[in-house]
Amino acid sequence: MNINGKHYHTIWVKENDPKTIQIIDQRRLPFEFVTQDLKTIEDAYSAIKEMWVRGAPLIGVAAAYGMYLGLSSLYQTDDLDEKIKDLSIYLESSRPTAVNLKYAIELVLEKIKYTTSIQEKTQIALETANQLKADEIENCRLIGENGFPIIEKISKAKKGETVNILTHCNAGWLACVDYGTATAPIYLAHKKGIKIHVWVDETRPRNQGARLTAFEMDQQGIPHTVIADNTGGLLMQKGMVDMVIVGSDRTSANGDVANKIGTYLKALAAHDNNIPFYAALPLSTIDWDINDGVKDIPIEKRDEDEVKYVEGWNNNQITKVRIMPENSPVLNYGFDVTPAKYVTAIITEKGVCQANQKDIENLK
Amino acid sequence: MNINGKHYHTIWVKENDPKTIQIIDQRRLPFEFVTQDLKTIEDAYSAIKEMWVRGAPLIGVAAAYGMYLGLSSLYQTDDLDEKIKDLSIYLESSRPTAVNLKYAIELVLEKIKYTTSIQEKTQIALETANQLKADEIENCRLIGENGFPIIEKISKAKKGETVNILTHCNAGWLACVDYGTATAPIYLAHKKGIKIHVWVDETRPRNQGARLTAFEMDQQGIPHTVIADNTGGLLMQKGMVDMVIVGSDRTSANGDVANKIGTYLKALAAHDNNIPFYAALPLSTIDWDINDGVKDIPIEKRDEDEVKYVEGWNNNQITKVRIMPENSPVLNYGFDVTPAKYVTAIITEKGVCQANQKDIENLK
Repeated sequence: MNINGKHYHTIWVKENDPKTIQIIDQRRLPFEFVTQDLKTIEDAYSAIKEMWVRGAPLIGVAAAYGMYLGLSSLYQTDDLDEKIKDLSIYLESSRPTAVNLKYAIELVLEKIKYTTSIQEKTQIALETANQLKADEIENCRLIGENGFPIIEKISKAKKGETVNILTHCNAGWLACVDYGTATAPIYLAHKKGIKIHVWVDETRPRNQGARLTAFEMDQQGIPHTVIADNTGGLLMQKGMVDMVIVGSDRTSANGDVANKIGTYLKALAAHDNNIPFYAALPLSTIDWDINDGVKDIPIEKRDEDEVKYVEGWNNNQITKVRIMPENSPVLNYGFDVTPAKYVTAIITEKGVCQANQKDIENLK
Repeated sequence: MNINGKHYHTIWVKENDPKTIQIIDQRRLPFEFVTQDLKTIEDAYSAIKEMWVRGAPLIGVAAAYGMYLGLSSLYQTDDLDEKIKDLSIYLESSRPTAVNLKYAIELVLEKIKYTTSIQEKTQIALETANQLKADEIENCRLIGENGFPIIEKISKAKKGETVNILTHCNAGWLACVDYGTATAPIYLAHKKGIKIHVWVDETRPRNQGARLTAFEMDQQGIPHTVIADNTGGLLMQKGMVDMVIVGSDRTSANGDVANKIGTYLKALAAHDNNIPFYAALPLSTIDWDINDGVKDIPIEKRDEDEVKYVEGWNNNQITKVRIMPENSPVLNYGFDVTPAKYVTAIITEKGVCQANQKDIENLK
């Protein structure tokens, strides 16, 4: 999608320098637009852990390129397999919840195992990362195609009046490579001339909604309004929301949706007000080994300072302010799990389905 | 309650200077402890509108003292009644949702109407404000007494293990004069040696939870943890919350509870996880004229900048940072309404009752 009118992906191989991967440093958005070079697996680890890149699909692609960077630093030795295993364990430890991370690393490991040459392995890892990136773009494009009729139908039912769509966190193109997951149907609807308006949850503690989704909407010229995370319930009570659409960091085989903390609360409010609630996600986000997401999806606990401090723009620089007493303890869970019973449907690259084991498996 | 070990009320007549009302400037907490002098009705208007004082009971008491300050500036004239009416209309416009504001102003108007002397009216207004203040303190004390058995019962059921109580916004002593509403049973339980722990919702956009409730808990030595507003649902799913207790800015006669935006979402999560949800409130908060709170309680829309900027402590001063793109619009509703069906019980100074018309009226 566009930034300042120019088309970007969130990650790419540097022009004329295939040893360098470039990313948008998302920690600085929307205040500054800066790209960063990743030259080592440690760079990729930091980029994922410190959330220079974030969002399930982008984390996966970044991890694949990370494995490529790691392999490119290795030499032909007897314990090569062990060293590669170490690289993969190291990189996988950067973010515990994102299933795409594991998926991407395992994909690279699978593809490179048929040759013993480190040069060939490295080249295959690069090709695998490039292919995964292309696949993620295509998946998001298809999620847009598959989700679009839902918005179109509401628009028709409202006789062309504005469709109000609430989203939580950033499951936009910045979380992916292009188009986004939750935003793909939104972008397509906008492109096709359907009148839409997006309620953007600010999404504390890291404010990815206020910072990234609002930035995306602003840059693509889509009418939107930022709200505190507390506000969505009231808007739904007042009939000011026609549908909710969110992404997912991990979805269990039975349709429970792990997504940014607070998603569950919006799903409850949507349910209470008969508003459809959709999760848009590539099938790679589904963890086929987990059948009870609420019980079994591990929830990442993050740094207290993300809650204790808020980062924003002041005096022409990114500034952190402490918003509570110095001594007060904090608990900072990154995700929650929305039970499948509150999910109207799942929108994937293979189609739309009900959030239950049978229908999800049929998409495979 | 205590600040730095010394007992304070939130509002008081200045010692040896009855023409001056003093308040704690709550905009600066928890970073700085500063008191302010109110000398005119305009001072009182600003203090209420700009939230130097906030919370339904404190707003009421501040309004009563505000009327006193306004009356003390008037002279004996033929159009005195009209001038007093103007004062009351002006002061009432400072905050539209708080029913206590209207109640307190009308109480003063009622009390002063039996004399035509402006000197006597002024003196009566002061006495009325003092009495209202004393009543609010006693109401909160009684809310504590009436709510305490609920905590005690959970503690016994847990065999003395810590009772985890979630609260939203600040319905603490800083919102009242002393004790608080939602916090009164908490303070009493702590005083009586029951093991408790309080989950403090930060309460965007103004962060009264992170700033004020956390400050209160810290100052009284009560174990507490600050969480993002998005977190409560997950904690409830995980069995980490035993009860929810909030205040109310206005309660309809049928038991719908208007409270800080986001309260409704916590009530839904409590309901979904079979966790009791209580609203603690003085009867003065009940609007007997409204029988459908969700439909008829007006919701205050506040300044966009409260969402667009976050205020905190940086470099030894209160600093505002912008947390979203400059151009993105914002909508900032101050309250939502929790339908009575999600309220387990209402805790008042007259006793605890179910959230329905009949039981509430029986408390009168």
